[in-house]
Amino acid sequence: MSAERQARLALTRLCEPGSWRVHAAVEAVGAEEVVARLRAGEPVGAVPPAVVEGARLRAERYNAAEDADALRRCGARLVCPGDDEWPAHRLTWFRDVKEAPPLALHVRGREQLAELVERSVGMVGARAASAYGVHVAGDLALGAADRGWTVLSGAAYGVDGAAHNGALSSADGRTLAVLASGVDVPYPKGHERLIQRIGARGLLVSEVPPGSPPTRLRFLIRNRLIAALSVGTVVVEAAVRSGSLTTARQARELDRVVMAVPGPVTSGTAGGSNGLLRRGAICVTSAAEVLDAVGVLGDDAAAEPRGPVQARDALSETVRQVLDAVPVAAWAAETTIARAAGVPTLTVLQVLPPLQVAGLVEQGMSGWRLTGLGAGRPTRAAP
Amino acid sequence: MSAERQARLALTRLCEPGSWRVHAAVEAVGAEEVVARLRAGEPVGAVPPAVVEGARLRAERYNAAEDADALRRCGARLVCPGDDEWPAHRLTWFRDVKEAPPLALHVRGREQLAELVERSVGMVGARAASAYGVHVAGDLALGAADRGWTVLSGAAYGVDGAAHNGALSSADGRTLAVLASGVDVPYPKGHERLIQRIGARGLLVSEVPPGSPPTRLRFLIRNRLIAALSVGTVVVEAAVRSGSLTTARQARELDRVVMAVPGPVTSGTAGGSNGLLRRGAICVTSAAEVLDAVGVLGDDAAAEPRGPVQARDALSETVRQVLDAVPVAAWAAETTIARAAGVPTLTVLQVLPPLQVAGLVEQGMSGWRLTGLGAGRPTRAAP
Repeated sequence: MSAERQARLALTRLCEPGSWRVHAAVEAVGAEEVVARLRAGEPVGAVPPAVVEGARLRAERYNAAEDADALRRCGARLVCPGDDEWPAHRLTWFRDVKEAPPLALHVRGREQLAELVERSVGMVGARAASAYGVHVAGDLALGAADRGWTVLSGAAYGVDGAAHNGALSSADGRTLAVLASGVDVPYPKGHERLIQRIGARGLLVSEVPPGSPPTRLRFLIRNRLIAALSVGTVVVEAAVRSGSLTTARQARELDRVVMAVPGPVTSGTAGGSNGLLRRGAICVTSAAEVLDAVGVLGDDAAAEPRGPVQARDALSETVRQVLDAVPVAAWAAETTIARAAGVPTLTVLQVLPPLQVAGLVEQGMSGWRLTGLGAGRPTRAAP
Repeated sequence: MSAERQARLALTRLCEPGSWRVHAAVEAVGAEEVVARLRAGEPVGAVPPAVVEGARLRAERYNAAEDADALRRCGARLVCPGDDEWPAHRLTWFRDVKEAPPLALHVRGREQLAELVERSVGMVGARAASAYGVHVAGDLALGAADRGWTVLSGAAYGVDGAAHNGALSSADGRTLAVLASGVDVPYPKGHERLIQRIGARGLLVSEVPPGSPPTRLRFLIRNRLIAALSVGTVVVEAAVRSGSLTTARQARELDRVVMAVPGPVTSGTAGGSNGLLRRGAICVTSAAEVLDAVGVLGDDAAAEPRGPVQARDALSETVRQVLDAVPVAAWAAETTIARAAGVPTLTVLQVLPPLQVAGLVEQGMSGWRLTGLGAGRPTRAAP
């Protein structure tokens, strides 16, 4: 492992991820120099003294060889800027985004990171998701995975888990989990098996080194990685106070596509996702619409949903006017129909025969009436 | 009744409403002249020969005195352009709107039309509404009526009926139904009682004269009146193929506010309303948000929905970092907390006492741990 790599690995242990000041210091003097200064408790760049002191304290117990070993033991690798699989175009952004890009990523799994996220969509939402949220997350993820898109999420309970599971249920579905803990620390415990399957089929990614527990701040910081690595993020179901709204905010700051699934306004669990729709997120109701929003035009464009075409649809306005004037139950003469329709009798005489051929009206001894088809009733299949 | 009024009344009988050619002819030569020509079966303006002939046929049986009587008998009146209660600013529009404005309106009820629609919102949707759609329609209508807004709809089954009923359930709630039949022809039959109550508390409005049955074309034409008379229209719940999408299209053409309520993507009944959200309709989830969209700013602005404020919210990032590092179950020493948090021990020593005062952490023999409040668990009310 090169000294630069070694230093970046150390930084993921000594400092909490997402700090612009640490990021700027690394850009200015290099990772090795930053680590050396932190170990010595010396100021570096604009890194706050409290962070320096915190890092120094952690460095006291830090063993570089042990850390590299831990990575190897769990079958993970460190991916750094400049590496082939570092998705540079997704992990470079301006200072106006609140949280800094990662300095390095711990990656576990056989897929190549950059390749896996090239066509990827984030799907996030409430841990306490409703049956509706879970169903829709699974459905969207399955649909996206079926079309060759990678589903990114955070392996949490609720929407996250449903999204991963949905992608895994597709034959060659690929999915990636960004964890707030180390790639060898399954969290939540109840998703240990799921996280294992994600690692086996896709990738587990984390900014913190093996063995690290998740913390609230790490969850927040992790969310931005889901947003950043994806072309766009769907908030499937979220209450007005939900971590996934942070992910949506981060996606917006990163100029990613922000989507939300409409949900019942009567359920508190959709207050946040519906709120995103109010604030301009793209409304998506199917996997096709998700891919329409993030995909290459033409390739993934969704068809407009349509109702069944009815026999009446093809008719001109005058013809419809006549048809409207033909009674369903009783029989009516041509002049009666003409008067009711407000059209000339001649028009009625011209229009009715073709309507009869089309099976919309029928003629009897005392005039005309509608057939079941003409009345717009669904036709029964022939026995 | 003036000759002009008499002629407009006759026109509502002789011609189907919404025709730009009839409208233009009236503008050009006046209603009386148009009626005289139609009676004689003579061409007038650009009115198509078929329409002239249809009108002539109807005129054969037309009795002006009888029609005026019919109006009087059902307690209705004819409202014409120029009348005090004619809402001119809502009923004047350019040729690029597909359907022409009404030539006159049949109005039944004690309220003044222009006054009643000044602060009004249309609420439309599926006849075959789900329980969800019916509930939301009633809820939005009640909320709007409670705040002094008139609810406009079409008295149909499903969403329409629920909206009228919701408005009527407000103490002084006002509501207006635009009918596709005459104001004395309750349609659908099952809403006879409801339509009666709307007439008693609000207004019944129609473009076709008393005694007229509804037709498909009249439903379409009627929809544009709901859109036109309202400041904005909410599509509460509609399938992808629904007449209320026509109302939304008409509202958009008329530069009215178009709103839609998000609904479950798993239910076909919300496909059309969700589709409107995809095409840019304003997403509304409460009466307050409806009035925010149509209302006077400040007067009706909706508060952003918020979750409950939690004790952790007010804390700075460093303090949160420390709090994150304090265990829930076990006790931890200050240095352990500092190392876990990545902050100086001094910071930990400074931060913990105030957190203790705030009730977020507690100190024991062997260090510190989180309280229930600090762990973010909901606090139980004191017994």
